[in-house]
Amino acid sequence: MIIVLKAGATGGEITQVEEKIKAHGLTVHISRGVERTIIGAIGDERKLQLEAFEGMACVEKVVRILKPYKIVSRDFQKEDTVITVLGQKIGGDTVALFAGPCSVEGREMMLGIGGQVASSGASFLRGGAFKPRTSPYAFQGLGEEGLRYLAEAREETGLPVATELMDPRDIDVVVKYADVIQIGARNMQNFRLLTEVGRLDKPVILKRGLSATIMEWLMSAEYIAAEGNRQIILCERGVRTFESATRNTFDVSAIPVVKELSHLPVIADPSHATGKMTLVEPLAAAAIAAGADGVMVEVHHDPESALSDGPQSLRPEAFREMTVRLRKIADAVGKRLGRV
Amino acid sequence: MIIVLKAGATGGEITQVEEKIKAHGLTVHISRGVERTIIGAIGDERKLQLEAFEGMACVEKVVRILKPYKIVSRDFQKEDTVITVLGQKIGGDTVALFAGPCSVEGREMMLGIGGQVASSGASFLRGGAFKPRTSPYAFQGLGEEGLRYLAEAREETGLPVATELMDPRDIDVVVKYADVIQIGARNMQNFRLLTEVGRLDKPVILKRGLSATIMEWLMSAEYIAAEGNRQIILCERGVRTFESATRNTFDVSAIPVVKELSHLPVIADPSHATGKMTLVEPLAAAAIAAGADGVMVEVHHDPESALSDGPQSLRPEAFREMTVRLRKIADAVGKRLGRV
Amino acid sequence: MIIVLKAGATGGEITQVEEKIKAHGLTVHISRGVERTIIGAIGDERKLQLEAFEGMACVEKVVRILKPYKIVSRDFQKEDTVITVLGQKIGGDTVALFAGPCSVEGREMMLGIGGQVASSGASFLRGGAFKPRTSPYAFQGLGEEGLRYLAEAREETGLPVATELMDPRDIDVVVKYADVIQIGARNMQNFRLLTEVGRLDKPVILKRGLSATIMEWLMSAEYIAAEGNRQIILCERGVRTFESATRNTFDVSAIPVVKELSHLPVIADPSHATGKMTLVEPLAAAAIAAGADGVMVEVHHDPESALSDGPQSLRPEAFREMTVRLRKIADAVGKRLGRV
Amino acid sequence: MIIVLKAGATGGEITQVEEKIKAHGLTVHISRGVERTIIGAIGDERKLQLEAFEGMACVEKVVRILKPYKIVSRDFQKEDTVITVLGQKIGGDTVALFAGPCSVEGREMMLGIGGQVASSGASFLRGGAFKPRTSPYAFQGLGEEGLRYLAEAREETGLPVATELMDPRDIDVVVKYADVIQIGARNMQNFRLLTEVGRLDKPVILKRGLSATIMEWLMSAEYIAAEGNRQIILCERGVRTFESATRNTFDVSAIPVVKELSHLPVIADPSHATGKMTLVEPLAAAAIAAGADGVMVEVHHDPESALSDGPQSLRPEAFREMTVRLRKIADAVGKRLGRV
Repeated sequence: MIIVLKAGATGGEITQVEEKIKAHGLTVHISRGVERTIIGAIGDERKLQLEAFEGMACVEKVVRILKPYKIVSRDFQKEDTVITVLGQKIGGDTVALFAGPCSVEGREMMLGIGGQVASSGASFLRGGAFKPRTSPYAFQGLGEEGLRYLAEAREETGLPVATELMDPRDIDVVVKYADVIQIGARNMQNFRLLTEVGRLDKPVILKRGLSATIMEWLMSAEYIAAEGNRQIILCERGVRTFESATRNTFDVSAIPVVKELSHLPVIADPSHATGKMTLVEPLAAAAIAAGADGVMVEVHHDPESALSDGPQSLRPEAFREMTVRLRKIADAVGKRLGRV
Repeated sequence: MIIVLKAGATGGEITQVEEKIKAHGLTVHISRGVERTIIGAIGDERKLQLEAFEGMACVEKVVRILKPYKIVSRDFQKEDTVITVLGQKIGGDTVALFAGPCSVEGREMMLGIGGQVASSGASFLRGGAFKPRTSPYAFQGLGEEGLRYLAEAREETGLPVATELMDPRDIDVVVKYADVIQIGARNMQNFRLLTEVGRLDKPVILKRGLSATIMEWLMSAEYIAAEGNRQIILCERGVRTFESATRNTFDVSAIPVVKELSHLPVIADPSHATGKMTLVEPLAAAAIAAGADGVMVEVHHDPESALSDGPQSLRPEAFREMTVRLRKIADAVGKRLGRV
Repeated sequence: MIIVLKAGATGGEITQVEEKIKAHGLTVHISRGVERTIIGAIGDERKLQLEAFEGMACVEKVVRILKPYKIVSRDFQKEDTVITVLGQKIGGDTVALFAGPCSVEGREMMLGIGGQVASSGASFLRGGAFKPRTSPYAFQGLGEEGLRYLAEAREETGLPVATELMDPRDIDVVVKYADVIQIGARNMQNFRLLTEVGRLDKPVILKRGLSATIMEWLMSAEYIAAEGNRQIILCERGVRTFESATRNTFDVSAIPVVKELSHLPVIADPSHATGKMTLVEPLAAAAIAAGADGVMVEVHHDPESALSDGPQSLRPEAFREMTVRLRKIADAVGKRLGRV
Repeated sequence: MIIVLKAGATGGEITQVEEKIKAHGLTVHISRGVERTIIGAIGDERKLQLEAFEGMACVEKVVRILKPYKIVSRDFQKEDTVITVLGQKIGGDTVALFAGPCSVEGREMMLGIGGQVASSGASFLRGGAFKPRTSPYAFQGLGEEGLRYLAEAREETGLPVATELMDPRDIDVVVKYADVIQIGARNMQNFRLLTEVGRLDKPVILKRGLSATIMEWLMSAEYIAAEGNRQIILCERGVRTFESATRNTFDVSAIPVVKELSHLPVIADPSHATGKMTLVEPLAAAAIAAGADGVMVEVHHDPESALSDGPQSLRPEAFREMTVRLRKIADAVGKRLGRV
């Protein structure tokens, strides 16, 4: 950690900073320049609180040298993490293909869409049973009933199922049915929920928060990893910006940036990023070209009647046609798309 | 609701939109212009899902006419909501003054700071017992022990206490001790938590999410109100932008905007907005001048040793001096600051 | 245009709005709902100033029905605009490849890099002679001398050259040497400059402003088109957000969005978007996969000594290797990369 | 400057960085930690290009120690800059009050509004003659004719006049009439224009760019100062964020932040920040409470007919009433508002 002092910091103040560093077992190096004095804290800076120094009156700024996350970093593990669930892979030379409705709306609907996306090459089924909705008056999901239909779809297709967990009180029921647990964007910093899924032995998809930096996203992944669960899949789904032509701004750069900083697989959710079905394919293609380990796409047999997220859902036929073109992009980057 | 169709929408498509509107009991008005056809849905548009129309291939855009929230709107209740807790007011001609440490770090500390801020005119005590921290390795709060010290501080000072609720599983213990429940920025869209506090008979401070629009913030307030609890205090605490000179960007405009749109009181948290103690006073003054019904300030007897948020905490003496100056601003807008 | 009145608007106020619309030759349609009165202005709403109505005390909001730009819209021209310069194409089934140094630093340097990128398949050369620099103490470009070297590079390679115009006073000299004029992000709303290039008979690359919405970007294109010059190439180069891991956030969605709204070609500048050489290839690939009509890449023979933008420049060999891989992506979307 | 190397940087790479620093006359300090090697460049780091190091493959990050601007910094000059024009002050214990129409629309109009705001205590008149408009089809200002009316208003009121300069080709004519030159938000990084006004002997109002950081804003001020003109007034006018309830997000924190970092006066423009007349007063009050050296307010005798910015303009009577209340806020912070 490097601590830059304000011009005019006194000897007494310098000593105070120095002692504070030593108290945590690190050693100190002081460099007095013409305009500024700089204090280096040498040792494991994760033992120091950056804030503790920023709060001192003589300090101008504090610069972290090491990354604040550890287990999930590329420094900690050089090789890419590859996750396998019921024979389907995320990571390595596979582009995983998650598909299904935004919300599970009924048994027939879930089995129908499940069968269709499976036959088009999807490698994972998705479907929400507990839905976070901005309006208290909107459809909130079928709950356990929805999870049961999801499990039935798994029996029929042989594909693993992913679904969102919103509340720590639902863990038992969600774990009972799901193969992959999804933490939604709004819960990326629900630290109690992260701690809970960190104790599970199931892969977790961690969606990026609407205004989360990549560093904060990796810190949230560290929360899960710190509890023991290292089967973490990061999911870019767009961030909030001033642009209103799309619901969110899909940060495609996050894909290669995450792959430099971390060994975890990273997938993309172009449906939520854009909120518009015509943009799903271009963004899915962009994500794969940029190195994504998977894409997650909402599919609905009748988007105009969907109880949630209709405008961004593809019909099963459109999904099938899209996979043909996405497969070519996957080939161009030396990977294969979807179902093994 | 106004539905603008794409150029070239067919008669069949127009009929489809029309039927969808009628199916929800609204009436339809069609206006065919030279360049676009526009369909108006007349009646209570809250019965329609905006998304259901956006998902139709012939639709260019959908415009809501009514606000998506109702109970919390100024249309619903003309008069300002004024909340009274243990004799202390929020709203009306009072500028409530919430003060205390970021985290309750111990008994002596909480009682000490509590006594000092009370004697400087604070009208509410604050202190966190459950802390949301971005790093899994940071101090997470004292839990129930912290709540007990907070309650003791209430006994000593006679002031009501406010504290954060992070997890639905903690409701019973938090309710047992707190007079005002705080929902943090990261939980502004934790809809399950909102539903739970909506069923309580305690005032709730709802902090604005880091990237929440004012409309979304009011929608979250509606979640609480829809369950029956109308003692809601909105709290502006800065939003995330590209500017890095301050931790967040304090959106002072949100104060008069909320007061136009809603009857709920709105307070400001300049400590979290800026992350820097030297900026707390100018922003608290700005908030009061702009019409805020209160300010919430972090105070610590030794900010340099604080276990959280040290850099933005004021010492008790600095807090006392600040209140003298803030009182003048409150006077200038015809209000009185703090304790009754 | 749809004008939504506030609850409680009086008959007199309604009449006032009505007369204002009629004064511009449009007809009026009034719809009185239970909660709100809505006034529709029927006719060419571009004759009305949205602001003129927003300023009225009785007006809650004003909604535009038509797009505020016209000539550059897809409604105005269905077919894609394809631009040809010295035999090289932008638009259609070609992915144009612009390459060269950020700044022209000298004759040998420009000719060297020009030759190398040409032999790797670039279809346009780029190089800055007038440089916008945030610091007054940084290298500001070689001016006309740089333009001469650029022209020499054109003679040697046969490729058209693109360079930035920053100041209306430089038009004559820039026009003398350049085949394609570039308007930088900081000048996207320099309306006087747009008017000037609108009068030229040369293709113009219009970079998206750092915080410009897609609508504003198209409005700026309309400025150029309104003066007669319709050879406009839009260039996405990243927008400013809260994320600091990359210099800007590359808005890949802007590519398909622009192609829906406009007939103009759209290219991508991954070098400026990210500021980091390791990210250039993934983003260039993403842009092509998403449908971009070209990519613009900074190449420098010695990035570590570059006078500007070194960190994001590729060496000529790295550029060559990248083109091999990007060609595969272009193939996958049915296009061909670079030089004809 | 501190250069943090990637884990695994070789001895050769370290030497390369070292030599590059020494080549610019600075000395080098190397600190080898367990996880990272850090290189400090000791001396005047403004001689080094941060980018030149970021471009090196072995470098993880580069941290500036000194601020990149100099003349405008508080380190360079401790005392506040106070500017006096025709007897009216900006800075010190005065809150300057700039008022007038967005655009000068005619002689009578300008003289009328000028007289009214002067009698209400304005200390400067404002009015645009050259207008930057997003649409090519909108009113672009009266040009020199407008400047003449502005000068007449100065004769009548005795107050100095401020007006915008958009194009370097207009300098002579603008200088001929204006007392204070305004550089608009869109031109904050029009470096050629900054250089030109840096050579003038007239005060310059430098508006903050829509997405400019405070550091970039100060760098632009440095551009002006570096040419010799130190009569610079910074003007906060809102930045672009995701929030759409207001046109921009007024960054009130920028006021105290700038006053910490720089000796230059800083004023606020609540009219442009919000785009809404009802928000002008709360934001003007907030700005003064936060320490602003002035406020700039748009006034129009008939906002509903204004050729630009009607929705955010106050009528002269409303302006007069507002000044009464703002004067109380100015008193509360120990300053006096407006005309001397």
